[in-house]
Amino acid sequence: MNAEIVAVGSELLTPFHQDTNSLFLSERLASIGISVIYKTIAGDDRRLLTAAVRTALARADILILTGGLGPTQDDMTRECVAEALGRQVQSDPELITELYKRFAARRMKVPENNARQAEVIEGAEVLRNPRGSAPGQFLEVEVGGQPRYILLLPGPPWEMEPLFDAEGLPRLIAHAPRRHIATAMVKLAMVPESAADERAAKIYKRFPGVQTTILASAGEVRFYLRAQAPTQAEAEDAVDQLSALLEEEFAGEVFATGDETLEQIVGYYLQMREATVAVAESCTGGLLAERLTRVAGSSRYFVGGAVAYSNEMKTKFCEVPPMLIAEKGAVSREVAQAMAEGIREHCWATYGIGITGIAGPSGGTEEKPVGLVFIALADGTKTGIVERRFPGDRARIRHFATQQALEMLRRRLV
Amino acid sequence: MNAEIVAVGSELLTPFHQDTNSLFLSERLASIGISVIYKTIAGDDRRLLTAAVRTALARADILILTGGLGPTQDDMTRECVAEALGRQVQSDPELITELYKRFAARRMKVPENNARQAEVIEGAEVLRNPRGSAPGQFLEVEVGGQPRYILLLPGPPWEMEPLFDAEGLPRLIAHAPRRHIATAMVKLAMVPESAADERAAKIYKRFPGVQTTILASAGEVRFYLRAQAPTQAEAEDAVDQLSALLEEEFAGEVFATGDETLEQIVGYYLQMREATVAVAESCTGGLLAERLTRVAGSSRYFVGGAVAYSNEMKTKFCEVPPMLIAEKGAVSREVAQAMAEGIREHCWATYGIGITGIAGPSGGTEEKPVGLVFIALADGTKTGIVERRFPGDRARIRHFATQQALEMLRRRLV
Repeated sequence: MNAEIVAVGSELLTPFHQDTNSLFLSERLASIGISVIYKTIAGDDRRLLTAAVRTALARADILILTGGLGPTQDDMTRECVAEALGRQVQSDPELITELYKRFAARRMKVPENNARQAEVIEGAEVLRNPRGSAPGQFLEVEVGGQPRYILLLPGPPWEMEPLFDAEGLPRLIAHAPRRHIATAMVKLAMVPESAADERAAKIYKRFPGVQTTILASAGEVRFYLRAQAPTQAEAEDAVDQLSALLEEEFAGEVFATGDETLEQIVGYYLQMREATVAVAESCTGGLLAERLTRVAGSSRYFVGGAVAYSNEMKTKFCEVPPMLIAEKGAVSREVAQAMAEGIREHCWATYGIGITGIAGPSGGTEEKPVGLVFIALADGTKTGIVERRFPGDRARIRHFATQQALEMLRRRLV
Repeated sequence: MNAEIVAVGSELLTPFHQDTNSLFLSERLASIGISVIYKTIAGDDRRLLTAAVRTALARADILILTGGLGPTQDDMTRECVAEALGRQVQSDPELITELYKRFAARRMKVPENNARQAEVIEGAEVLRNPRGSAPGQFLEVEVGGQPRYILLLPGPPWEMEPLFDAEGLPRLIAHAPRRHIATAMVKLAMVPESAADERAAKIYKRFPGVQTTILASAGEVRFYLRAQAPTQAEAEDAVDQLSALLEEEFAGEVFATGDETLEQIVGYYLQMREATVAVAESCTGGLLAERLTRVAGSSRYFVGGAVAYSNEMKTKFCEVPPMLIAEKGAVSREVAQAMAEGIREHCWATYGIGITGIAGPSGGTEEKPVGLVFIALADGTKTGIVERRFPGDRARIRHFATQQALEMLRRRLV
């Protein structure tokens, strides 16, 4: 079975807004073996939206509409689906009663428009929406002799997602042919995409039944595995086997096999080892501290950080000798090392990280070009230092540098 | 005239990728008075893509396709458009010659597949793509007696955008009825959306000819103005008048009327005043320093920052008396003030900013709930302190707090 997702809303046709609900929906649909064959974005226009519904019903088994269920005159998904099916909408007395109760509880009159939200397409099931006043609707119809399933969902993701999971998904599962699907994820940091793909390809090619998607962003590669099989055990077996071989191939380079971010994983290890970290940043300007403290509860292992942009501050915050800066330059292996060791002592932390480099776009020289970054990790015994030349613009270079720092710390902790 | 944008690529139907080209295209189309009535996303499937092209040609004046112009078997936009029109594709000898020259220059053989990129739909104009090997194509056809304009563009934004501007836009302008459109932007920080809308509505309602879109994100409201008129002067006059009245209404609250970010504007003012800033952050964990240093050249006015997560670091980095923390608590008006004043002195900066608060999700109490943040700005004479209760999750609270800090600094500098 296949599906078309229609996102409704004139704002989704402007340069300022974008449908994102379909990403959530296509993930959920894939998990039950339903593929999305088209996505359509239509505005709040009766004629055009009705036409889009007709087109979708002619070409897909399942039609999921998001948005256009609110109380205003612009919200016309209900009417347009009804019109495309040649049906009426009817006011549901139970929904009307609920609406009155809800407003009465807040000592408010029901605005006239709101009654629109109680309108139900003939033959539709009402899907109760605990997070908003617009209920969803589900219909099973026939178009040209073919069965069709139609789902109307509210637009705000906060309402749509739980409603789909609670009410939409079970209804689709009931009608879709039973599929057995298993998925897995393997995440690596600081391995170039091409190298990761080359090393992985010789493994995943041996599993033609497992679909392998490689997703890469700055300093991170994710393998997303998905298998479909006659039984659930077989599907899980296939992804588990491939995932185990990938983990073996990349051994120390795999940082997670789930949703965790690199900074979360580093946080887990630090807590496990009862260790703490402090950071001294120059070119990354606070981004490393910001990433570490994005994680709730990071105060248990993150002590503090210094953004030492000027030479004076490198001395003041992390005790880098001014002579060293004068001799080697602020962007040097030696200064990165002194920053890492200095901030560690200054903050009484188990680990200290120092980053100095040239994020650009200006400030580069032939000898020290834009993208050159030194990253040091000190633990009181030895200090590891790496020199990297990162590609891309200022934002990318800064991100790469923090990714490298987190990965160095993770490998030290493992 | 109206348009449909069809984004081609099976990856755009997965949970991992999303079409973003249509945002760029709808902005450009709006600037010449062409509205987008549908967006469709279709996969690399001959039958389904051809059907999508037919559907689009039946309902829109202009059809813009992005993607599917590469050399692989998956790239079938050319064939599908030809098939939908009942035309053939023909290999263009000139394009073949260019392809051979390009590969010869790199001493490489032309891979067999690449010849596909020289295929041109009968009657199409070839649009030279300086940034890639896939040229665009433009067609003027008739469908059901109606004129239709079809534009095939490559998928990578880096290739698509300049090609559309150089070759696509002029052709559409030549065929579209002449429109005169002017746009303007007014940006405010830390004004709630509802309040901004209420104050603005009474002004923009007097200009029914100017379309006003309000875009709000955490701590930022943007008014996007757009007018269409019989002459360019009239269109510009209308947006200028409205923009001037909005700037008057919001006076000190307007931080930009262009693309500049709040941190860029703060940077301009600091340079203009030959002033510097240093920051001490607790709950924002480095985000304020990170935002300030996102701006290229920020080393001219950003001296340094301290992420003082623990009480000891508040004392060490910004000289907050331990007694004060013990007495008032780390999250207090007094500690925010001491952090701002301490970091200013510690870094010999013109301005010092101190932020302390509870970003959550845990750590809140009845008296000091999650979202409570104190932000202080010191200049050596007086220190301003604000207490705010920000809504939302950890990331949102942290963003709000830095937005408030930047806006306080901006207002002090103006």
